[in-house]
Amino acid sequence: MGRWQPDSRGRLQEAALALYAEQGFDQTTAAQIADQAGLTERTFFRHFADKREVLFGGSALLQERIVAGVAGAPSADGPLDAVAQGLDAAAVMLGEFRRDLSRQRQVVIDASPELRERELTKLADYAAAVASALRERGVTEPQATMAAQAGMTVLRVAMQRWVSGDDGQDLAAIMRNCVADLRAVAASG
Amino acid sequence: MGRWQPDSRGRLQEAALALYAEQGFDQTTAAQIADQAGLTERTFFRHFADKREVLFGGSALLQERIVAGVAGAPSADGPLDAVAQGLDAAAVMLGEFRRDLSRQRQVVIDASPELRERELTKLADYAAAVASALRERGVTEPQATMAAQAGMTVLRVAMQRWVSGDDGQDLAAIMRNCVADLRAVAASG
Repeated sequence: MGRWQPDSRGRLQEAALALYAEQGFDQTTAAQIADQAGLTERTFFRHFADKREVLFGGSALLQERIVAGVAGAPSADGPLDAVAQGLDAAAVMLGEFRRDLSRQRQVVIDASPELRERELTKLADYAAAVASALRERGVTEPQATMAAQAGMTVLRVAMQRWVSGDDGQDLAAIMRNCVADLRAVAASG
Repeated sequence: MGRWQPDSRGRLQEAALALYAEQGFDQTTAAQIADQAGLTERTFFRHFADKREVLFGGSALLQERIVAGVAGAPSADGPLDAVAQGLDAAAVMLGEFRRDLSRQRQVVIDASPELRERELTKLADYAAAVASALRERGVTEPQATMAAQAGMTVLRVAMQRWVSGDDGQDLAAIMRNCVADLRAVAASG
């Protein structure tokens, strides 16, 4: 048995992102990641099912948080206000992750058509779950899908702005600004 | 040389969609499609690079039409009005295709994670192209991306409603209603 290792998961994630960025996602093996983190391959597979899960491992939990945010919004809230509550919940979870690592993650995803497709699929899954949560609040279609998809656009755009660091704001503030921008776009023609 | 065949492309497309729906996309070969259409495999490959292109062959042209619609909108139009012009252009092109075949196409895509990912990637590509066209009209970010993405959501939702036949309206009218719904969602909170 190896000695006790603090935060193996975090070290594996950091090592993986560095290697994906350096030598490409396809060229990186689980063994290399474990080696770089000073851990065994077996430990890698105790934390992640495969290489892709390092990038997308939190998505089920993220979807849960977003949906809980939407479902828990005050009942007087309209569809977009409810979606904004879901985005607040997302910002709390995503904002806990180091911004430099989030940026590295995005660069890796953007460089690979396969990973980009996977990211789009995740966003579409979140949108479908949010639309369903809105319908449970009594929102009809196509408004539910429209509000949900708009919310996931905000999520993606806000993440990009946050990791770029240009805005100098925290993720929750950027998301709220993006929702306001969306409202302005829709109102102005 | 075979005898002259009217609209080989259309016959191949119809045969392909029927086979994809019947026996699954993965299980269908180009030879089977050609056979069902009463044509040679060589003719199939004269019209389509591969099996997937039967489903996505028109996407480059569609993107071009949407972008031209956005770029050609009156200069006083705001971002969402310009996007609506692009959607009008899309409705003209997509509405020319038989609705029953469009429905079959959507069923085939929805049944395959690989095809669904490809469809999402196409929509993301359209959105990026529309955002770029909006920026050329002087729209700043993130408004350009937000309006473009919202437009592609409308495109997808409107297509789904159109192929379902529930609305009993033509595609252009459904798209305009969806844009109105989007505005209502954004205005109402």
